[in-house]
Amino acid sequence: MTRPIFFLTDFGLSDTYVGVVKAVILTIAPDARIVDLTHGIPPQDVRAGAFALLTAVPYLPKDAVVLAVVDPGVGTNRRPIAVQAGGRIFVGPDNGLLSWALAAPTETPPRVVRPTLRRPLLRLADGLSGVLLDRPDSWLPMVSASFHGRDVFGPVAAHLAAGTPLAALGSSLTSTSIAAFCFPEPDQRSSGVLGQVVYVDRFGNLVTSLMARDLPPDPVVMVRGRAINGLAEHFQVSAPLIALIGSAGFLEIAVPNGSAAALLQVGAGEPVHVGPGEASGTIRA
Amino acid sequence: MTRPIFFLTDFGLSDTYVGVVKAVILTIAPDARIVDLTHGIPPQDVRAGAFALLTAVPYLPKDAVVLAVVDPGVGTNRRPIAVQAGGRIFVGPDNGLLSWALAAPTETPPRVVRPTLRRPLLRLADGLSGVLLDRPDSWLPMVSASFHGRDVFGPVAAHLAAGTPLAALGSSLTSTSIAAFCFPEPDQRSSGVLGQVVYVDRFGNLVTSLMARDLPPDPVVMVRGRAINGLAEHFQVSAPLIALIGSAGFLEIAVPNGSAAALLQVGAGEPVHVGPGEASGTIRA
Amino acid sequence: MTRPIFFLTDFGLSDTYVGVVKAVILTIAPDARIVDLTHGIPPQDVRAGAFALLTAVPYLPKDAVVLAVVDPGVGTNRRPIAVQAGGRIFVGPDNGLLSWALAAPTETPPRVVRPTLRRPLLRLADGLSGVLLDRPDSWLPMVSASFHGRDVFGPVAAHLAAGTPLAALGSSLTSTSIAAFCFPEPDQRSSGVLGQVVYVDRFGNLVTSLMARDLPPDPVVMVRGRAINGLAEHFQVSAPLIALIGSAGFLEIAVPNGSAAALLQVGAGEPVHVGPGEASGTIRA
Repeated sequence: MTRPIFFLTDFGLSDTYVGVVKAVILTIAPDARIVDLTHGIPPQDVRAGAFALLTAVPYLPKDAVVLAVVDPGVGTNRRPIAVQAGGRIFVGPDNGLLSWALAAPTETPPRVVRPTLRRPLLRLADGLSGVLLDRPDSWLPMVSASFHGRDVFGPVAAHLAAGTPLAALGSSLTSTSIAAFCFPEPDQRSSGVLGQVVYVDRFGNLVTSLMARDLPPDPVVMVRGRAINGLAEHFQVSAPLIALIGSAGFLEIAVPNGSAAALLQVGAGEPVHVGPGEASGTIRA
Repeated sequence: MTRPIFFLTDFGLSDTYVGVVKAVILTIAPDARIVDLTHGIPPQDVRAGAFALLTAVPYLPKDAVVLAVVDPGVGTNRRPIAVQAGGRIFVGPDNGLLSWALAAPTETPPRVVRPTLRRPLLRLADGLSGVLLDRPDSWLPMVSASFHGRDVFGPVAAHLAAGTPLAALGSSLTSTSIAAFCFPEPDQRSSGVLGQVVYVDRFGNLVTSLMARDLPPDPVVMVRGRAINGLAEHFQVSAPLIALIGSAGFLEIAVPNGSAAALLQVGAGEPVHVGPGEASGTIRA
Repeated sequence: MTRPIFFLTDFGLSDTYVGVVKAVILTIAPDARIVDLTHGIPPQDVRAGAFALLTAVPYLPKDAVVLAVVDPGVGTNRRPIAVQAGGRIFVGPDNGLLSWALAAPTETPPRVVRPTLRRPLLRLADGLSGVLLDRPDSWLPMVSASFHGRDVFGPVAAHLAAGTPLAALGSSLTSTSIAAFCFPEPDQRSSGVLGQVVYVDRFGNLVTSLMARDLPPDPVVMVRGRAINGLAEHFQVSAPLIALIGSAGFLEIAVPNGSAAALLQVGAGEPVHVGPGEASGTIRA
């Protein structure tokens, strides 16, 4: 019985980088099952990778190995790590990539939970155990400076899939900290709540840090000087710009059959304000 | 013994949408085998998805589960369905996406057969049995408004792959009708035969509704004011524009090492006329 | 026990071409494991496919079937072949695509070795055995003019994965030759060494024909009138243009967080000169 590997990178699919990592995994663990989460994270965008993991991980099997490589610091002194959270084991660079998924509690039935991360460090306690990957005998014999997915992380994931215990792959990091990104918390104000765009998907939908429970009744969403009255139920609405609760539970801003990112010329970090609507107050579009 | 799942969407591969559906499937059916047909259907282009299925399905194993999600109406009252045709089972929205593949008889050895669909409805009779997917206990416990691939269709495909009978997943639709697209039939005229472009592939090849048997001998293909004399045998021809019978059996218009769609600035729906050539008549380029 | 299939093409992922080949394989060999190496080789770019195979193959399991289809001559008289090298078997068109991988010795532990190919022919001797694929009973019953991946190569790979011996699939080519590309050898001159760009990856990195052992100490890399002093250890360098030994062992030219191909407007074939640096001589940037 092998653990399934779920694989996320910014490698793209134009070259053989992803295929070669899979080949290395299958050489070590011929029965491993490898599922692509995505390889389309924008190059070097570690935060986008962190958000993608945050929203995907709750839906993974409980015995998943999560192999995540968005690693602009490859070849520098950033550390390679593996961390167990519940039954799942995460393998990747210690650069914040794993932090949002690790800090979010997982629930049954699955749903995305917003992580609480107010400092750029995540303490490995409370059910998290981790190791520094410092056992070269579990890697490829020759380690390049620029492709640790192939030479380090892939082999480690393969060993984990095949049943090697975490403790055999490195020195314990438990009760120390790993790198993290602060997750923007909703800023409740008298005028409403302030959040920000945290991810832009390939449709140009703007996914924000706000969840349904943060919003006032009858909300008016303000972004880049535009006001959107109320929430749509789905994307089949004839309106130039809509807001809705997306499939991950976050407020999203979308253009039906178009791209909100292109229309508004905004990306991650853009402030989004949600206030009470006409029925409740005086703000107007 | 599980049935293999063949998976087609317009989700793209930049985000984790496809990977998350696979994760949900593997949580329900850990031994399921999932093969991507494509996730590159243009967003919301249900007809392009229908054509892609029409040409792919004859080559699928007879026990395949076809999971197809091009679903601009997600969250509206369009119905989720599953339909069995021969040994294969199709899962997706009732919006015409499945109609061309379901209306085309499958043959051994495999080849693509043009469906006869003159009305926007397909009657579930003559070997087709189907169900309305109305058993929430076979879905994820929480169903979002916008991601039924993850919450409804993926779980249903997983149960089918694991051997659950179709009848356990919904109420019978047999002897009722589902949504369909009319398939353009060749219009035989005194001057020749009139068809249209039905699909544009990533090389910019224009795939038409016409098959070899529709064409006059020594054909001249007319499209957007251009005439192409005769059919090429392959793509290695030094000509600015060629016509040939493509791998799905349909007449295609192509630019060797280039894009016919870009050169002619045409897409699906563009009329294509094929008349007898110089050897047989008077039409000239 | 089936052999795993590693699959490389220029088909892209927008259409169902790749998925249909997999469906055909799984119809013949239901337990086959199919891994994508890449389907993003630029259309018809056989040399780019050859380089991709050269750098990937050393990392494949020893029992791999390599299914490679970049085949602009499909439907012409180019031959379909299968060649065994060590334990691995390669299936594809006889157009040079396989030649670099077949000419490079494989080593344990894996690393990329530069092939020696001074003539456009590769002799099948010294551990290579091959067949001309001339047994239509191992193909699909109906063979199209333009999709031999589906109709010929995919079925052959499936039979090989399922254990059919190579000799059952065609007539022996052993002690004859197949098509090859010459591989550019380093040209050692008094001023340094001259090589060329052989591949451009999706990040715009320029991969050259030169390896670490070809370079003088303290090297200065010259390309398109630009000089780069010394080799970087990784991509996290604040410089407009860097040179480093890439993960395949070849000298690469890169723009940190950018594209060297776009900056320099160069592609495969571009000359690259490497001379001794300031510490050893007088060349300056």
